[in-house]
Amino acid sequence: MPASLELSGHRFQVIYRICGTSDEVRARAREICIEQTVEFPEALLPDGDIRNHIVGHIEAITSIGESQHEVAISYAIETSGFELTQLINVIFGNTSMQPGVRVERIVMPETLLQAFPGPRFGCMGVRTYLGVTRRPLLCTALKPMGLSADELANLAYTLALGGIDIIKDDHGLADQPFAPFGERVARCSEAVQRANQMTGLKCVYAPNVSGRGDETLRRAHLARQLGAGALLIAPGLVSFGIMQQLATDEGIGLPILGHPALLGSFAVHPDHGISHYAIFGQLMRLAGADATIFPNYGGRFAFSREACKAIAQAASEPMGCLRPIFPAPAGGMTLERVPEMRTVYGEDVILLIGGGLHTRGPDLLANCREFRRLVEHAL
Amino acid sequence: MPASLELSGHRFQVIYRICGTSDEVRARAREICIEQTVEFPEALLPDGDIRNHIVGHIEAITSIGESQHEVAISYAIETSGFELTQLINVIFGNTSMQPGVRVERIVMPETLLQAFPGPRFGCMGVRTYLGVTRRPLLCTALKPMGLSADELANLAYTLALGGIDIIKDDHGLADQPFAPFGERVARCSEAVQRANQMTGLKCVYAPNVSGRGDETLRRAHLARQLGAGALLIAPGLVSFGIMQQLATDEGIGLPILGHPALLGSFAVHPDHGISHYAIFGQLMRLAGADATIFPNYGGRFAFSREACKAIAQAASEPMGCLRPIFPAPAGGMTLERVPEMRTVYGEDVILLIGGGLHTRGPDLLANCREFRRLVEHAL
Repeated sequence: MPASLELSGHRFQVIYRICGTSDEVRARAREICIEQTVEFPEALLPDGDIRNHIVGHIEAITSIGESQHEVAISYAIETSGFELTQLINVIFGNTSMQPGVRVERIVMPETLLQAFPGPRFGCMGVRTYLGVTRRPLLCTALKPMGLSADELANLAYTLALGGIDIIKDDHGLADQPFAPFGERVARCSEAVQRANQMTGLKCVYAPNVSGRGDETLRRAHLARQLGAGALLIAPGLVSFGIMQQLATDEGIGLPILGHPALLGSFAVHPDHGISHYAIFGQLMRLAGADATIFPNYGGRFAFSREACKAIAQAASEPMGCLRPIFPAPAGGMTLERVPEMRTVYGEDVILLIGGGLHTRGPDLLANCREFRRLVEHAL
Repeated sequence: MPASLELSGHRFQVIYRICGTSDEVRARAREICIEQTVEFPEALLPDGDIRNHIVGHIEAITSIGESQHEVAISYAIETSGFELTQLINVIFGNTSMQPGVRVERIVMPETLLQAFPGPRFGCMGVRTYLGVTRRPLLCTALKPMGLSADELANLAYTLALGGIDIIKDDHGLADQPFAPFGERVARCSEAVQRANQMTGLKCVYAPNVSGRGDETLRRAHLARQLGAGALLIAPGLVSFGIMQQLATDEGIGLPILGHPALLGSFAVHPDHGISHYAIFGQLMRLAGADATIFPNYGGRFAFSREACKAIAQAASEPMGCLRPIFPAPAGGMTLERVPEMRTVYGEDVILLIGGGLHTRGPDLLANCREFRRLVEHAL
């Protein structure tokens, strides 16, 4: 009984890199076409649309070196249900359990992309929101964990006074007893607003929002009410679906900084997982992050310069109607590296310096002003 | 200014496996103690509780082979904020971006575990709920994707008539146009109940519940209203936090099958990520899954027998007051392997055979009855 599924005929492609000989790669690619869709013995599939169109299609296999091939597999856009969770499931759900397969990039037609509003602000929107037209944005983090809400607020005040644009929570600040979420967000938001009155600037405080299920949503709304100016969200912890909801919720309406916590497992191994480009670039943007934070090369983490450039590329290159977003390289950055980072990332970048602002010298306010001076200084 | 944080003194341990020489491992372990907590230059940490107790402690370093060490690091339970998202963040958030570090297991004191209700049913609860006292439970999946709600319901009817205990959606069934969630759940629930009236058995239908943010919660409530008897949840897609909420929500109150989609990336690489034991065993159970589905060794996936046994161990061994849960080995299983699986996993196991039930022969009802006969047959 051939079923007619009224499919649009539009398909999206996933470019996988697969290890093995040409024959092995072809066999694995065929398995992926089945595994990611019908997950059913091929011989028993009904004739018609399921067999012909729901099962993935191998579009191309290209050798890219010894025992490495790039394989383009296309899927009917309807398999995604036009939802982010299921889209990610089709891209890599069960295949994540197979070694030697890596998602390199995703190519989506307009008919699929239009299901995803993406970033509410994007680069231009964030610039307007913060009143910064051209230069890179300055960002830092409130830490260490263990400080009280008042101590964090004092820190935020100094950082805002020093000319930082975005002051985010360290991603380890949740709702711990030493600085409970509501108290911390109220104090830090107020401190930043007080500093703004002194400086005439538009610094914003971005609390880290996490928690069990819809507690994340509750905290995001609370943050907005308490005067936060942006949100820090780690989709590896709370899910890309929650991030998408926060980005589209009219009652929140704040820029979102995407944090990479826990997502490293996907990208770290060169022969498995999801590439830096796809997970920190494409998926973050698709889910509505206005900036994607990632460890810059040459810092505490082992991301390569090439991987970082790929993230920045995915953040900015054309992607349907989705706004370009800021790359936010971080992870052990120092003031000394600001000129280099501008050369590599250009002006549309958020420079996130955390601990490095404190180690520069004992006067945090002076360090912030030096950071600002460096960034306002023409290259 | 030494801060007194009124910490309980209770700590949980994460056992990491770290690659490198003894000196490299010690240095990396020290970095993890900082990275997973204060993420701040050590020299600038304030004296007192933050420096002494918030920063992780290296409790032991044990050589376990050439260039491999097991390192036990303890963290103050308060760093977790007693929340699952932040607990996972402390365990592996930023360190996920470092190669050569793998979470082997987590050791939590009662004072931390009691913050997590865990599985609502557990093995015993599910047995009571399904009226099956001793033997392994029989489970299968509705597929392939592309069938209509009516076609899936017809399939469910036959499977229930054949004596299957749990009929789950394939994890790729979301809310696609060919079988929209509400229509599918209504039809399949009704079909299973109709079969139960014929058989006198208590088969349940477990729809796959996903979606953007709190859409997952809405669908779970809808599923309950429409007569679903359990839920299939993939925390890799919707987050462990959402799973925890579904497990504790009094308005839902259904057993939860945890699906491994997307989580493979954590476990597949032997020198990185989170072990099978920790992610498919400990975290699934902590988040409230009543069963953990994983690819059995010797099927379509590359999990080892040892890894599968480790998952089963984590599912059942003592873990504070948390109920033991069912291992549910799957992924290319066949009726022929039932006796072996009973030998390996014992009687407290859910045997999940999907496509294998269809390939056995053309008569699906007969195949189900044979599955049931095999399982009711004493070893």
